[in-house]
Amino acid sequence: MQYNFSQKFASLKPSAVREILKSDAGKNNVPFSAGNPAAESFPSDFVRRAAEQILESRPVEALQYGISEGWAPLRETLKKWCEERCGIDMSKNELIVVSGAQQGIELTAKVLCNEGDTVVAEDPSFIGALNAFRSCGLKLAGVPLDADGADPAALERALASDPKARLVYLIPTFQNPTGITASAARRAELYEVARKYNAIILEDDPYRETRFAGADVPTIKSMDSDGRVVDCGSFSKVLSAGLRVGFVVAAPELIAKITVAKQCSDVHTNMLAQMIVDSFVNAGHIEAHIAKIRRIYGRKYALMADGAAKYFPEGVTMTAPEGGLFTWCGLPKGSDALAVTALAKERGVSVVPGLAFSVREGENVPFIRLNYSTPSDEQIERGMAILGGVLSEYVAGLNE
Amino acid sequence: MQYNFSQKFASLKPSAVREILKSDAGKNNVPFSAGNPAAESFPSDFVRRAAEQILESRPVEALQYGISEGWAPLRETLKKWCEERCGIDMSKNELIVVSGAQQGIELTAKVLCNEGDTVVAEDPSFIGALNAFRSCGLKLAGVPLDADGADPAALERALASDPKARLVYLIPTFQNPTGITASAARRAELYEVARKYNAIILEDDPYRETRFAGADVPTIKSMDSDGRVVDCGSFSKVLSAGLRVGFVVAAPELIAKITVAKQCSDVHTNMLAQMIVDSFVNAGHIEAHIAKIRRIYGRKYALMADGAAKYFPEGVTMTAPEGGLFTWCGLPKGSDALAVTALAKERGVSVVPGLAFSVREGENVPFIRLNYSTPSDEQIERGMAILGGVLSEYVAGLNE
Repeated sequence: MQYNFSQKFASLKPSAVREILKSDAGKNNVPFSAGNPAAESFPSDFVRRAAEQILESRPVEALQYGISEGWAPLRETLKKWCEERCGIDMSKNELIVVSGAQQGIELTAKVLCNEGDTVVAEDPSFIGALNAFRSCGLKLAGVPLDADGADPAALERALASDPKARLVYLIPTFQNPTGITASAARRAELYEVARKYNAIILEDDPYRETRFAGADVPTIKSMDSDGRVVDCGSFSKVLSAGLRVGFVVAAPELIAKITVAKQCSDVHTNMLAQMIVDSFVNAGHIEAHIAKIRRIYGRKYALMADGAAKYFPEGVTMTAPEGGLFTWCGLPKGSDALAVTALAKERGVSVVPGLAFSVREGENVPFIRLNYSTPSDEQIERGMAILGGVLSEYVAGLNE
Repeated sequence: MQYNFSQKFASLKPSAVREILKSDAGKNNVPFSAGNPAAESFPSDFVRRAAEQILESRPVEALQYGISEGWAPLRETLKKWCEERCGIDMSKNELIVVSGAQQGIELTAKVLCNEGDTVVAEDPSFIGALNAFRSCGLKLAGVPLDADGADPAALERALASDPKARLVYLIPTFQNPTGITASAARRAELYEVARKYNAIILEDDPYRETRFAGADVPTIKSMDSDGRVVDCGSFSKVLSAGLRVGFVVAAPELIAKITVAKQCSDVHTNMLAQMIVDSFVNAGHIEAHIAKIRRIYGRKYALMADGAAKYFPEGVTMTAPEGGLFTWCGLPKGSDALAVTALAKERGVSVVPGLAFSVREGENVPFIRLNYSTPSDEQIERGMAILGGVLSEYVAGLNE
């Protein structure tokens, strides 16, 4: 039979990144296209012992239905985490456990936006969030980034020009795909613009704990004096991506609505995973584990930066992130990132072309995103040499 | 600040059942209001050993991101499951793993319905599904049930009278809240009506494996000659509710869209849980485990039926389910189910008033739903004696 899909889904495509990953799977290529945490960053032994202990001592709690807000002990643990590590005043905020930050983003959009409303996002931005907004029937408006994060003047123009733009989606720390971190001053400016236009800021903060250089910058949520910031956190990069545990922190009234949305979506997050996260945070060696992750990513990024310095031709730029998983390479004017992506793939290196992250679909974006968390050290070294060759060849062709 | 919630969420309330459960938690009452599987039905030892073995042998796979379709080995396992146990022709269908049947319901509604469309559901029906439809901005139309399931003539009237009614939500086996199972002939009739109006049937089938009396009835999906049935299954009642693993089976084109929606919602379902379900289905003792669950629920229902026969006054009816978790008590004409619920609660027995399951909100529905899977045998015996007293008192008052 002929199916009539909803308007919002009729034209929605699967994430280009995930499709690239699927087509790459099993091939002997260098996966600069992925967004996976490093396999060696997972505390597998800890998780195995924690799961065993939980299923030994509280099996019924782990296997029975829970409440949509999240497992009560974990919520308390995470409230402390948010106060201590993210500077959030939890006396004024509430918290819900969600199945990864992705779900936090989607639920927030659902409860705050009507179809046809506009979400203002950094351009480029995280494709998973952009698709979640599209799947809610929302329009997207883009705000360019400079080296200090999203441009406040552009944000102001976007909000001023569109009365239906009332949600601002930002990844201020180690932004995906650019790797850029907004300074504290820039965050304060962005917050003031949101306040001026009575907009809500959705702060997506999954990479915070992966910092390997520079000093922590306060979350926008920590500056939130009037309850207009929704903060999404995640354990995907700190503990495990496959366990799908994240959280949303916001004013109690907002969390109450998000809880209703969560109930409608999947009732509650996997109990065993919630209990494992709780054990992990309370086990006492989390600082050592996070330090280990930072060392891994710092080393991998340094290898990538070395490779770029050694092999990339003049005219190709690369951001210098202080954490997170990604760096963003600018190609010379007139470059077609899709052609570079195809050529790199042919030579065994997969990257993601810039347009995958654009709020405007189908537009050429002369950038490629490189991930350094997934490939092995050897793959990074080899991949950067290959990619350098591809870029040199491509750029030489441009200049002919 | 003042929040502007989306139209679809502005008026949406948390599930009345979950609110009742939360207010009951920790009190020494008889939980006839719950919908939890029996604690003793969880194969805790098996899950503990399986988790340990998985985290020992494939830790990275369990902790890393997966694909939105679900873990490939589990998908193969479930396809076989659907062919063998549900009579579904998997050569014409595809399958996606979801985070419980609740998610399958919500994703199906999202990809098939525009805001303002109508979902036709049995009335009364599962509150979680009704709220998921409401959260998608959908209207609800009700089809009454008789002893043989949803009334095909009423379904035809609902579809004929509303051009925006193109999705039909049915729980044909051990319906929640009524416990009614539609016969094969009735299912065929409902399918024909849907075909006549080119509607899609969403068949919610979470209770199938809990049958303790009577003979299996084929799924509507097994009768689906033209790809208009979406089937949602779940391991919540067979293995564990807290693990949040279910699946959706439908035509490949529909599953492809649902996969995009899944990606936007939560990327993928918890990997460890998927791997545990796969171990469970393939472990070889699943028949014995299901037989055990059937014995537990058969015994618990028999205790409840005995209690009703012994203590319920004339004029109160109760359905006689052959599986599932619920039975549905009709109160005499003129009864106020909320008053009965309040009186029962005062005496230590919590039940859910009929209006919680109504497609029309706020209407008096002179029924209460009783759950026999959650309470212990002792609680069932004690609770039915108390409830019998409450009902006798209430009915006597009515007749004064």
